[in-house]
Amino acid sequence: MSPKNAFYAQSGGVTAVINASACGLIETARQHPDKIGKVFAGRNGIIGALLEELIDTSQESAEDIARLRHTPSGAFGSCRYKLKSLETHRGQYERLIEVFKAHDIGYFFYNGGGDSADTCLKVSQISAALGYPIQAIHIPKTVDNDLPITDCCPGFGSVAKYVATSIREAGFDVASMSRTSTKVFILEVMGRHAGWITAACGLAAEQEGEGPHILLFPEIEFDEEKFLAKVKATVEKYDHCVIGVSEGIKDKEGNFLSETGLRDAFGHAQLGGVAPTIAQLVKDKLGYKYHWAVADYLQRAARHIASKTDVEQAYALGKSAVEIALAGKNAIMPAIRRLADTPYRWDIAEAPLSEVANVEKFMPRDFITEDGFHITEACRRYLSPLIEGEDYPPFKNGLPDYVRLKNVAVPKKLAGEFKL
Amino acid sequence: MSPKNAFYAQSGGVTAVINASACGLIETARQHPDKIGKVFAGRNGIIGALLEELIDTSQESAEDIARLRHTPSGAFGSCRYKLKSLETHRGQYERLIEVFKAHDIGYFFYNGGGDSADTCLKVSQISAALGYPIQAIHIPKTVDNDLPITDCCPGFGSVAKYVATSIREAGFDVASMSRTSTKVFILEVMGRHAGWITAACGLAAEQEGEGPHILLFPEIEFDEEKFLAKVKATVEKYDHCVIGVSEGIKDKEGNFLSETGLRDAFGHAQLGGVAPTIAQLVKDKLGYKYHWAVADYLQRAARHIASKTDVEQAYALGKSAVEIALAGKNAIMPAIRRLADTPYRWDIAEAPLSEVANVEKFMPRDFITEDGFHITEACRRYLSPLIEGEDYPPFKNGLPDYVRLKNVAVPKKLAGEFKL
Repeated sequence: MSPKNAFYAQSGGVTAVINASACGLIETARQHPDKIGKVFAGRNGIIGALLEELIDTSQESAEDIARLRHTPSGAFGSCRYKLKSLETHRGQYERLIEVFKAHDIGYFFYNGGGDSADTCLKVSQISAALGYPIQAIHIPKTVDNDLPITDCCPGFGSVAKYVATSIREAGFDVASMSRTSTKVFILEVMGRHAGWITAACGLAAEQEGEGPHILLFPEIEFDEEKFLAKVKATVEKYDHCVIGVSEGIKDKEGNFLSETGLRDAFGHAQLGGVAPTIAQLVKDKLGYKYHWAVADYLQRAARHIASKTDVEQAYALGKSAVEIALAGKNAIMPAIRRLADTPYRWDIAEAPLSEVANVEKFMPRDFITEDGFHITEACRRYLSPLIEGEDYPPFKNGLPDYVRLKNVAVPKKLAGEFKL
Repeated sequence: MSPKNAFYAQSGGVTAVINASACGLIETARQHPDKIGKVFAGRNGIIGALLEELIDTSQESAEDIARLRHTPSGAFGSCRYKLKSLETHRGQYERLIEVFKAHDIGYFFYNGGGDSADTCLKVSQISAALGYPIQAIHIPKTVDNDLPITDCCPGFGSVAKYVATSIREAGFDVASMSRTSTKVFILEVMGRHAGWITAACGLAAEQEGEGPHILLFPEIEFDEEKFLAKVKATVEKYDHCVIGVSEGIKDKEGNFLSETGLRDAFGHAQLGGVAPTIAQLVKDKLGYKYHWAVADYLQRAARHIASKTDVEQAYALGKSAVEIALAGKNAIMPAIRRLADTPYRWDIAEAPLSEVANVEKFMPRDFITEDGFHITEACRRYLSPLIEGEDYPPFKNGLPDYVRLKNVAVPKKLAGEFKL
C-alpha cells in the first residue's frame, strides 16, 4: 500500500506561533515517507480544500520549513469559514471527499480554535457517514485560550508575554511623566468573551504600586461608579493609573462598551474601541489627562517577543498530531497537560474531539480578585509559566527575518468549479 | 579646589533609551571623583531643580546604575515644563542659581529635545548674565528625531525598530487572512510635526507586495481622493493593504484629521485618533473590512525591541556630555556624526547649543516618494543603520527586568517654598 498524502489547514485568527505547529507537523511527516506521502496545505484554510486550491509543501526546502518556527501569521493563509452540519451541508462534505480522493489524502490535520475543532470532528465522522477512510486530528490554536482540556492554547502564551511586557513598559513611561503629564493610561487588548489576555496584563504588576492597577474583564460587568472610584483612589495614591481593558467588556445591560450607541455628526456609529471610550469617561468624570493604546493585530502577530514555552508547545503539538495519526487514531486533539507549576512541566495527552468541540473555557472566578479589578495568586501561578522564556527570531537589516514560502499550487485534478 | 557636583535632568517625553544616556553620564562622572562630586538628578526633571527636589544618585549601586542602560522611561522622572526667557522669568533662573549654589553644583546636564536645548542654552548664559559659574551641556533625546546637526536623536532608532517590526508582523497577519477577513490594516504612530516615525514603518516593506503599502506623512497634505484610489488599487493587486499613518496628518485646510469636528450624541468631540478616522473613511467609501491599532506609548517605551545602535549612541552621548564638561566647555550638545552608511560608522561631534535651540529638522522632500505615499531609497539609506542590532534586556519571570532606583532625596538646604 503506497503511503497516503496529508492535508493540513490553518483556521481562524492567526497567531505568532501557528506556523511553529505547521513546522512541527511537516518536519515530522517528512520523517515518515513510508507512511505519509506529501503534505498538502489548504490555501486560505479549509477553503483551499473546498476549492481544490492545494499547496504542495514538498516543494519547500527543509530550511524554509524550519524558518516557519519563527514566522508569525499563517504561512498558507487562513480563513474564517465554518462548515455547517453534515445534514444541512452534505454537499460540502461530499466535495471534501471528492478532493481528498482526487489527491489521495488519508490524513486531515486542522489547526485552529473552537469552531475548527467542531469542523474537524465532523470531518472525522465522514469515514463512517460517507464511507471515505480518513483520520482527522485537530491541533489547538487560539490566542483566546478558551479551548477545554488542554492546559493552554498555542498562541496565547505569546500574546500574554506581549501584553504583559507592553503594559509594563508603558507603565514605567507613565509613572515617570505623571507629575506634569498623563495620569491615566489605558491599553485595550483582545479577548471578547474570555478575559485571559486581560489577565495576562496583570502579570506585569509584581511590585507595590506597579501597573497595571486596574483590569477590566469581560467576565465582570462594568460598574462605572466603582471603576471611577478605583481610578481616583489609584491616582491619589500613585499619581498615575495604568489600566488593561478587554475589548469585550459590557455594561449592566449587557451592551458592549465599544458600541455605546454614540454617533458622530453624520449619524455614524462611534469609531474605535473600548480604550478611547474609557479614556473619555475618565476625562469627563475625573478630569485626568489620559493616553490610550489599542494593540489589535500587533499583539497576536508579535513573534519578536514570543514566549519560548508557547513556541515549544506549538511545535510539539504539530509533531504530536502526526504521531497520533500514525498510531491509527481519529477524532483526537493533542492537548497540553500540566504536570507542575514551578518549574513548569508539561506533556501531551490525547483529548477526544467530541469533548473539545463547542466547549468554551472561561476564567475561573477565583482567578479574579474579589473587587473584580485584578488577578489573584492562583491566576498568576497558572499564567506565569506560559510566558516563560524568550525565543527571538533571527534579524536581518534590523528587522525580524520571516519566511515567505513559495506556496506552489498542486495541479487541479477535478473538473468544474465548487461554489463556496 | 573641591570638585563641584553635577545636576542631571530628564526632560519631555521619555524614551526607551534616555536612561542609557543617564547610565553613560553617571558611570563616566563616577570615574572622575577628582573633578565631579556627586551627580544630583532632578526629581521630575527641571521641576526638581526649581523645587529643590534633588535625587542623590551616589546612593545607587553600580549594578543598579548599569541596569539603567536597559530600562525604558525616565528613571528620575521627567516633565513637560519650559523655562521662559531670562528677561520675563528672571525669578526662575535666580532660583536655579540659589539651588545650584546651595548644593555646590557646577555642571548642568539636560537630557531632552528641542525645548530642552533652548532651556539649556539659557542656563548656559546664567554664568555671564547672573554671575554664577556653571557649565551647561545638552544631551539630545527625542523620538521625533527633529533636532538639527546630529545625525539622529536617541530614542528615535528604537521607536523606528519597533514600528517597522510591528507593521511587518501585522502585515504578515493581514496578508494571511485577507481572503475572508480584514483587507485594510492601519497603524497610527507618533510624530505630530515630522514624519520620521512614519517613514520608519516603510522599512518593513522590503519585498514586492510587502506592507506597508501606504504611508501618510504629516509633511504631505492628506488628499482623500488620491488616498482612496491608492487603497483600492493596492487591495485589487494584493488583496490587502497595510497603512502607516502619522498622528499629525492634516487635510487641505490644515486641520488635523484627528480633530475633524465630529461629535458624538452628547456633543463631545470625537474620541480617538487618526487610525479609526481613516479606517472609517475606507469602510464608508470602499466597503473594505478594516482593523486598526494605535501604538501610543507602547512605541516609545518598547525597550524590549530597542535598536542596539540607538542604545549605544544614547550611552555614548551621556558619556560624552561629561567629557565635554570636563574639558571646560559650556553651551554644547554632543551630536552624532555619520561617517558612513554601510556599514554605519559614526562618532560624536560638538554642536554649539545656539545652533540647536529652536531649529526643527523635518523630513527632506526627497525622502518621500513623488506620490507622497512611501519612502525613497535615500530615506532607506538614512534610516536602515539606525535600527541595526538588537539589545535585549534581561528577563525575569518571563518579563523584562527593569530597574527601579531608590531615588533617595538630597536633604533640602533652602528655607521657604518656590512656586512653579
